Amino acid sequence: MIGRDLLGIEDLEREDIERILETANHMREIGEREVKKVPTLRGRTVVNLFFEASTRTRVSFEIAGKRLSADVINFSPAHSSLKKSESILDTARTLDAMDPDVVIVRHAVAGVPKRIADVLDAPVINAGDGAHEHPTQALLDLLTVQQEKGRIDGLTVTIVGDIVHSRVARSNIYGFRKMGAEVRVVAPPPMIPAAVETLGVKAFTSMREALDGADVVMALRIQNERLAGSYFPSIREYAATFGLDRAKLQFAKDDVIVMHPGPVNRGVELSHDLADHRPSVILDQVRNGVAIRMAVLYLFSGRRKAGRSERIQGSS
Amino acid sequence: MIGRDLLGIEDLEREDIERILETANHMREIGEREVKKVPTLRGRTVVNLFFEASTRTRVSFEIAGKRLSADVINFSPAHSSLKKSESILDTARTLDAMDPDVVIVRHAVAGVPKRIADVLDAPVINAGDGAHEHPTQALLDLLTVQQEKGRIDGLTVTIVGDIVHSRVARSNIYGFRKMGAEVRVVAPPPMIPAAVETLGVKAFTSMREALDGADVVMALRIQNERLAGSYFPSIREYAATFGLDRAKLQFAKDDVIVMHPGPVNRGVELSHDLADHRPSVILDQVRNGVAIRMAVLYLFSGRRKAGRSERIQGSS
Amino acid sequence: MIGRDLLGIEDLEREDIERILETANHMREIGEREVKKVPTLRGRTVVNLFFEASTRTRVSFEIAGKRLSADVINFSPAHSSLKKSESILDTARTLDAMDPDVVIVRHAVAGVPKRIADVLDAPVINAGDGAHEHPTQALLDLLTVQQEKGRIDGLTVTIVGDIVHSRVARSNIYGFRKMGAEVRVVAPPPMIPAAVETLGVKAFTSMREALDGADVVMALRIQNERLAGSYFPSIREYAATFGLDRAKLQFAKDDVIVMHPGPVNRGVELSHDLADHRPSVILDQVRNGVAIRMAVLYLFSGRRKAGRSERIQGSS
Repeated sequence: MIGRDLLGIEDLEREDIERILETANHMREIGEREVKKVPTLRGRTVVNLFFEASTRTRVSFEIAGKRLSADVINFSPAHSSLKKSESILDTARTLDAMDPDVVIVRHAVAGVPKRIADVLDAPVINAGDGAHEHPTQALLDLLTVQQEKGRIDGLTVTIVGDIVHSRVARSNIYGFRKMGAEVRVVAPPPMIPAAVETLGVKAFTSMREALDGADVVMALRIQNERLAGSYFPSIREYAATFGLDRAKLQFAKDDVIVMHPGPVNRGVELSHDLADHRPSVILDQVRNGVAIRMAVLYLFSGRRKAGRSERIQGSS
Repeated sequence: MIGRDLLGIEDLEREDIERILETANHMREIGEREVKKVPTLRGRTVVNLFFEASTRTRVSFEIAGKRLSADVINFSPAHSSLKKSESILDTARTLDAMDPDVVIVRHAVAGVPKRIADVLDAPVINAGDGAHEHPTQALLDLLTVQQEKGRIDGLTVTIVGDIVHSRVARSNIYGFRKMGAEVRVVAPPPMIPAAVETLGVKAFTSMREALDGADVVMALRIQNERLAGSYFPSIREYAATFGLDRAKLQFAKDDVIVMHPGPVNRGVELSHDLADHRPSVILDQVRNGVAIRMAVLYLFSGRRKAGRSERIQGSS
Repeated sequence: MIGRDLLGIEDLEREDIERILETANHMREIGEREVKKVPTLRGRTVVNLFFEASTRTRVSFEIAGKRLSADVINFSPAHSSLKKSESILDTARTLDAMDPDVVIVRHAVAGVPKRIADVLDAPVINAGDGAHEHPTQALLDLLTVQQEKGRIDGLTVTIVGDIVHSRVARSNIYGFRKMGAEVRVVAPPPMIPAAVETLGVKAFTSMREALDGADVVMALRIQNERLAGSYFPSIREYAATFGLDRAKLQFAKDDVIVMHPGPVNRGVELSHDLADHRPSVILDQVRNGVAIRMAVLYLFSGRRKAGRSERIQGSS
């Protein structure tokens, strides 16, 4: 059912997502034990191939792998011979020849994990590629909503902020739509992609309308202040109009929850108060991230593409 | 008896120190076996959160954790989204949500480990914070003296060098005083803190007087040459007056031992001869460092602050 | 039979090499299992002390160590207090005092692993030192040839490229000569060391003559373009004359294989076609690298020099 690689939520069926969430629920129990380790992936090798720096994602995958007893190898280009102009694909092929059971790839350019997956024997997990997808982030967001609300189907989910540059938004739009939620996006107009409604979402520029009746509000990180001027007048004005605080949450349902992929720019996307307190569930998202990555490593590792090497280095 | 965090020797009772040293003596035996590994912390996660670069301390904690079968995660800001302006506390909270059993923190600013401990569920071990404390360094020094001399109580310990900027000096002053030793400090006057005698130590500017009858001499590292001019006339003059060599050791007891937290500036704090030979015990200090860190990880890991997360993200 | 350290192929007897290759053949089987892990080195500590950046070699040793259940500690000077002017030998001595079972050393300067081995208790494996030796690379090349050809004795091996700056060339010349192969080198004249024939190899400047009847052709990496002008007129001209492609391979035996230590400069040392397809066996070399490093870690770890510390810190 599930394919060999996890490159994006776009490629998954609803049944695939449900299976991953169900597996993650089991994995979460392991994290609550005193001995947070099971022998499931003993003797398997997980490679974290991170071309782009990352805090939480690399550590989250590393902890997930170790809780499953896998051997985890971190490899980031700062330590690598990519400085010696070795191409990305040759680096990946070289690691692949050491027979890893799964390779986690993060890269600043959309599509690189797919290009790597095309040449590797080992299955590839996309840990974020440019503005394309970040599937494990969306899966942990789905898990968190399911845990808080008991269901996803029929909920109203409002995503606030820089939709056009956000892989988190794209993956979540696919994920929540496939799971039966209504998805809204709201942002300054230049931050809403032209064809966003073809993805089945409703676009707003008014927070009041976008939040009306929402069960879940997800704020996106403003990646940097360089956007000010071209995408919105100033950080201060962005925060006043699109920053979440308790006043704006009045438009949403009483039991609304607030999510953010982190790290939060406090006082911009979220008020200081919301960054730290319910109804925000940011730390639950982080905790669920480990469970999702354990599930994904369990479900995808070891799905080697038989004969791939033979094809590449086949007799001429 | 021992608190939840290990932030400084100042907070420990004599009984706490004795318990740590006793545990470390057992741990040292493990390091002498062919199979240097026990299952004590299997399934526990140790995070090395090093905001400041370090050679020996990070590796020492990593080896200590692995000898206890813990999973060790290294995380240093060079690879992190702290470049993306994520605050230190948010980084720590994010790691904490992944349920580590203990977090080791090193930071160039005094007090950061305490601030982190205030918001984490996981216990925090201070691995050096600015000029404040470096408790595991003092503990390994105490263990080394106890091993060499059979006791600490009643000994005379002379600390030579830059007392005012040294977390090693502060932690050792607390440690040796609590364990009943007489502590002296000796340095150029600007390197002796104004109120140092309130810590129960005697301050000297004459090496001859400070070393008279000493059982232990601990030389501190001169952190950099920028101090020359403001704190002492020149490195050469510092070495001539305060650098340890066999001639100056004549003032101390016959069986004096020489310690240094490393790395040594050879020919400055210690003569080349003393850097490599008895009575200096520098490599024993390093070896004991692994035993102390095993003891500390064993005694402190898993002391989670129940309900902390609930308080932080409690319902509003 | 085998010494305590692995510093170069020059120091090995043919019997030593045969024993390493035989052990590596067993290790390769482990890498083909689903659970690629054996308990052989459980409780042993392997330190990767890499002063020079490296992709494949560091990861290859790390995977090798973990497949044998060793604890692997990565330590590279970028994270270290070498920035604080700690000397290389003091860094190595400090690590040694933490009782590792084997230390892997890579350094840009020839002879550093030997100098480190002279002061350590732990055995040292040279992972590449300047233009001196890279013994595990030669061993994995020997293993690959043995696997492809069924033997090494009596074969003709042609090494193409920058012999004078290449530790890979030096180690392979020693290795293939000791194992009974005929070794030829071919390059622009400034890239051939003056006394290379004293190593028992034949030097050529004509590819046609050098490849005539060759069983194995090994292309070396052109380390950087700065060589153009002094060592050869231009990269383009180098590629035209010394770059391998199917046309030039006509001079060699029909069943010739092509090797490269990687990373390949495509279109320079090898045509794009040869970089990816048989008869090149580049990914087999990488795969065999893990097996060779497992064999080397198994054979050399734990051979501590008893009493070394005592000598260094012996009573005065």
